[in-house]
Amino acid sequence: MTNFSKFYQQIATNRLSSWLITLPAQLDFWQKNNLHGEYKHWQKTLDALPSAQQTNVDLLHSVSVGNQGDLNEGESKRLENLLKKFKPWRKGPYHIHGLHIDTEWRSDFKWDRLAEHISDLSNKYVLDIGCGSGYHLWRMRGAGAKFVVGIDPTQLFLMQFNAVQHFIQDEKVNLLPLGVEQLPELKAFDTVFAMGVLYHRRSPIDFLYQLKSQLVKGGELVLETLIVDGDENTVLVPGERYAKMRNVWFLPSAKAMCAWMERCGFKNIRVVNTDITAVDEQRKTEWIDTESLSDFLDPKDNSKTIEGYPAPQRAIFIANS
Amino acid sequence: MTNFSKFYQQIATNRLSSWLITLPAQLDFWQKNNLHGEYKHWQKTLDALPSAQQTNVDLLHSVSVGNQGDLNEGESKRLENLLKKFKPWRKGPYHIHGLHIDTEWRSDFKWDRLAEHISDLSNKYVLDIGCGSGYHLWRMRGAGAKFVVGIDPTQLFLMQFNAVQHFIQDEKVNLLPLGVEQLPELKAFDTVFAMGVLYHRRSPIDFLYQLKSQLVKGGELVLETLIVDGDENTVLVPGERYAKMRNVWFLPSAKAMCAWMERCGFKNIRVVNTDITAVDEQRKTEWIDTESLSDFLDPKDNSKTIEGYPAPQRAIFIANS
Amino acid sequence: MTNFSKFYQQIATNRLSSWLITLPAQLDFWQKNNLHGEYKHWQKTLDALPSAQQTNVDLLHSVSVGNQGDLNEGESKRLENLLKKFKPWRKGPYHIHGLHIDTEWRSDFKWDRLAEHISDLSNKYVLDIGCGSGYHLWRMRGAGAKFVVGIDPTQLFLMQFNAVQHFIQDEKVNLLPLGVEQLPELKAFDTVFAMGVLYHRRSPIDFLYQLKSQLVKGGELVLETLIVDGDENTVLVPGERYAKMRNVWFLPSAKAMCAWMERCGFKNIRVVNTDITAVDEQRKTEWIDTESLSDFLDPKDNSKTIEGYPAPQRAIFIANS
Amino acid sequence: MTNFSKFYQQIATNRLSSWLITLPAQLDFWQKNNLHGEYKHWQKTLDALPSAQQTNVDLLHSVSVGNQGDLNEGESKRLENLLKKFKPWRKGPYHIHGLHIDTEWRSDFKWDRLAEHISDLSNKYVLDIGCGSGYHLWRMRGAGAKFVVGIDPTQLFLMQFNAVQHFIQDEKVNLLPLGVEQLPELKAFDTVFAMGVLYHRRSPIDFLYQLKSQLVKGGELVLETLIVDGDENTVLVPGERYAKMRNVWFLPSAKAMCAWMERCGFKNIRVVNTDITAVDEQRKTEWIDTESLSDFLDPKDNSKTIEGYPAPQRAIFIANS
Repeated sequence: MTNFSKFYQQIATNRLSSWLITLPAQLDFWQKNNLHGEYKHWQKTLDALPSAQQTNVDLLHSVSVGNQGDLNEGESKRLENLLKKFKPWRKGPYHIHGLHIDTEWRSDFKWDRLAEHISDLSNKYVLDIGCGSGYHLWRMRGAGAKFVVGIDPTQLFLMQFNAVQHFIQDEKVNLLPLGVEQLPELKAFDTVFAMGVLYHRRSPIDFLYQLKSQLVKGGELVLETLIVDGDENTVLVPGERYAKMRNVWFLPSAKAMCAWMERCGFKNIRVVNTDITAVDEQRKTEWIDTESLSDFLDPKDNSKTIEGYPAPQRAIFIANS
Repeated sequence: MTNFSKFYQQIATNRLSSWLITLPAQLDFWQKNNLHGEYKHWQKTLDALPSAQQTNVDLLHSVSVGNQGDLNEGESKRLENLLKKFKPWRKGPYHIHGLHIDTEWRSDFKWDRLAEHISDLSNKYVLDIGCGSGYHLWRMRGAGAKFVVGIDPTQLFLMQFNAVQHFIQDEKVNLLPLGVEQLPELKAFDTVFAMGVLYHRRSPIDFLYQLKSQLVKGGELVLETLIVDGDENTVLVPGERYAKMRNVWFLPSAKAMCAWMERCGFKNIRVVNTDITAVDEQRKTEWIDTESLSDFLDPKDNSKTIEGYPAPQRAIFIANS
Repeated sequence: MTNFSKFYQQIATNRLSSWLITLPAQLDFWQKNNLHGEYKHWQKTLDALPSAQQTNVDLLHSVSVGNQGDLNEGESKRLENLLKKFKPWRKGPYHIHGLHIDTEWRSDFKWDRLAEHISDLSNKYVLDIGCGSGYHLWRMRGAGAKFVVGIDPTQLFLMQFNAVQHFIQDEKVNLLPLGVEQLPELKAFDTVFAMGVLYHRRSPIDFLYQLKSQLVKGGELVLETLIVDGDENTVLVPGERYAKMRNVWFLPSAKAMCAWMERCGFKNIRVVNTDITAVDEQRKTEWIDTESLSDFLDPKDNSKTIEGYPAPQRAIFIANS
Repeated sequence: MTNFSKFYQQIATNRLSSWLITLPAQLDFWQKNNLHGEYKHWQKTLDALPSAQQTNVDLLHSVSVGNQGDLNEGESKRLENLLKKFKPWRKGPYHIHGLHIDTEWRSDFKWDRLAEHISDLSNKYVLDIGCGSGYHLWRMRGAGAKFVVGIDPTQLFLMQFNAVQHFIQDEKVNLLPLGVEQLPELKAFDTVFAMGVLYHRRSPIDFLYQLKSQLVKGGELVLETLIVDGDENTVLVPGERYAKMRNVWFLPSAKAMCAWMERCGFKNIRVVNTDITAVDEQRKTEWIDTESLSDFLDPKDNSKTIEGYPAPQRAIFIANS
């Protein structure tokens, strides 16, 4: 069973101590009532992972640990087989003792787009909302963060994270299986990341307030979301599906997004990057068994989704609380 | 103290019986914890209202009870003085034993615009969300509704309603001091009205789902809200104030509003009326002490609000669940 | 499904209206989460009961409705077969259209012992805590009570009650599937009965306070419980079993019981009856398939239970709040 | 403000980790809603305590820290004045850098009576329910306990404890402002002490179950309570006051107490000491401003309380879960 005792021990005396008022009860409820049907199997897979010396950790330019040759051939094969039980691996890539987990997304591309624009993370408390398997958590730590917390309610992602954590072993990097609505108003993080989440929220305004309530006064929000072209009054609310995704709600223009952020009290709001997702950044690999971007676009016109909406365009917004 | 026992008695054996699971506890909490500071004074004002025979009730063409002359001059003056303690009277007008409560809004105009478009209310269960003082509740009853419930969290409006109820005395017309988020999924009303509320909601999508969850399958939603000109991707989110109102969030175009409703599962969606609010419909009277529409518009260009946004334009949408 | 709507309707405007704050939510939870595994079968048995005219109801000298001959022979047999599905019938007897339900207990004997001592029940609100199948509820109503409520958490007893209610049809007599700890402080009943319950409570003192909190000021408590001989400091706490019953805790002397009641604030406390339960009052009949009193006593010495404790001796206490 | 972060940090990874599910929320509620009116003043008194080297700590034969002369005369006087703001000091005595806190009770006498009978506390997790100012907590630690927790809802006692802790500084000794009913079923302590509490409980049986649910299987309960002479069916429930104390409920004989413990599933139950409290163990000192034992007894017959009950007689019971 995933055990959060070490996390509680750390936050008891750091800036997040008030989180103990709600978090242990939430996670206890989760463990008793909401575990995924496959959870026990997954846990066994985790327990079967081979041990290896925690050497050559690089979190600055990649997320990698160890080298080819740390494991013998049999162990290497077993490692690959075990980790493939956690498919689909969406966010990455990871390099683990010579094994390249070639994930659907090149999340390092996104990191490269934003890294130069964000405040220095050295010695910072950092929160990543909707962190997936936690790829960016490691990069935040690599950039000097003192304490990194990711939240994501998808339990498979927690398994992927735990698998990586098994090899890297850094207790300052943590993933909790929570949704943003379960967070109290911590007002404790220096930087909050929320990438690829806003368009999944029914209420983007409430989401912005939730993000703000996690930040220390003057803290930095790094928000990335799908946008459309248009003026400050342009917002696309697609039908049932957008790029085959259900559960997509508000796609504002960059200007509209800035106006919303301002309305919610953010300051110093700027768009630091816009980017049309390319098929070299999101594509089918052997680590996913599902479709990927090329299947989501109109085969005759890659500027449109298969439903006829503008193809995915993403912007990164930075602002202060 | 406002007593809801008669309401509970009625719903115990009608279609709304499951409401007893949550409602009495909510209203008890409200009475014990959230009464307005003036509540006791208001209650005394209500208790001091003169008695009069409940004659000549007209709810079909107006909201009126009794005639000039039912009360003597002293009683008439006292009635006026007492009711003016409940200023501002926003929605109306009411005619009570010769007293004309000339409210800020001519809510009868709005009723006239929608009456021909809605389904026959005869024998229907009807809910009005954000009903204000309840003017339209009476008109719904006048149109034949079997059981009418309005909700509005503003306690002054409950006082205004109770004052009118004091004279009309119709237990099939009820106002509860609740917000929409306090309603369970009753799925019990034939028609739900939500007029002048959506633009005050941070999350219009959640609001649409809440409305839908009050309707019987196939029931009718009558929704009125502020709109802007534009195509289906046009949505105005104003700054801090819109026409001097705080707390205004999403002003979609009519087409965008229809798309949202469709996304939330409504069917047979149509715009039955659009209207630019005129100063003969919303204006200062002796029953309010505050500003009114003419103060909210740009004095040099009545097509704009004082903040420079498009002047208030309202549309009525009808759809089925 | 047992439906409490009529009960809610009645209490909405009577002295028990504050009960609506908690009761519907409790019973809704019960129906959704705690129904007995046989509940649906039992409900079908209830639905299959024959109809008969509600004639010759006697609640004053017995609990009986109708006469031999109201049902034809086939119906009579069916009635008996259906009602025997609700075995064991502990408290009674009942006479239903010629069918004699010869229950394990002659609860009429107990009623006769207390009837002359209690205050007149005419027009009273009466509560019976731990009412079993409700035999005494009917007798209380027969004695003139205006509104009678029994509570007992055992769902089979609710079925037995509903079966009898099916024939008598008196909405002023009600049984709710609740334990005493689920009651709010109603302070609304004129008389509260608690017979055969105190010795099953781990905390007799808390139980006495719970009883008191149901009574109007000055109301009457009628409490019957097992006692032992002894002075005011004599209290038997038996081992695992007493007369083969598990879950027996405190058996005080009559004097100790009076001292406890006084300590809890009761006034005018008196013992109106003590009685050693005889085998003609509690015995095996064809309406139970289990053992009865004669099996619980030492076969060689009926003054002792089979465990060697003093045989069951019961006393009736009456006091005012 | 008392801060429990260090306690949370310790239990996060020890045997008590499941306590984090409920404890931080309880203590947060307590701090926000239930602080004593004098709490802030008390806190200032604590903050004003002089610093002194933590030397010569003796917890084995007494509770003492430091020596006469560690503080200069002014500091000594100030220390005494500050600590006297926390009067009445009931349980002790304490010796703090030359200051002798001569408490009402010689709690060391009680410790001496029980010390030889209890299991070795070395490396044990120990809980003391109703620990007062925590005198025995220190002695338990002195006897080798690994982790000591006391609970007592009286906030003044927490201040007294914090004052002593200020000088001794041992984070393995902790006092939490809780009542026994707030404890979850921890099943984690090797030894649980409950001295002078049972007679204050309305429900001694529920109390025994609560104690049991704190113990590891086979753990040891040390229970001390007021008793009366008599056989296993003898229990005194006094009137409003016993020895001028309100809130005294059940005083069983030693045999009755043993029977209750057995009924609740304790094993290996024995009485290791009975003692009539003498006026040299509980008496008025300059550290209390209230009455003491001699005022509670019949001046003409010290074998009786002033109300005429048997004078306080205490027994120590030891048993295993």
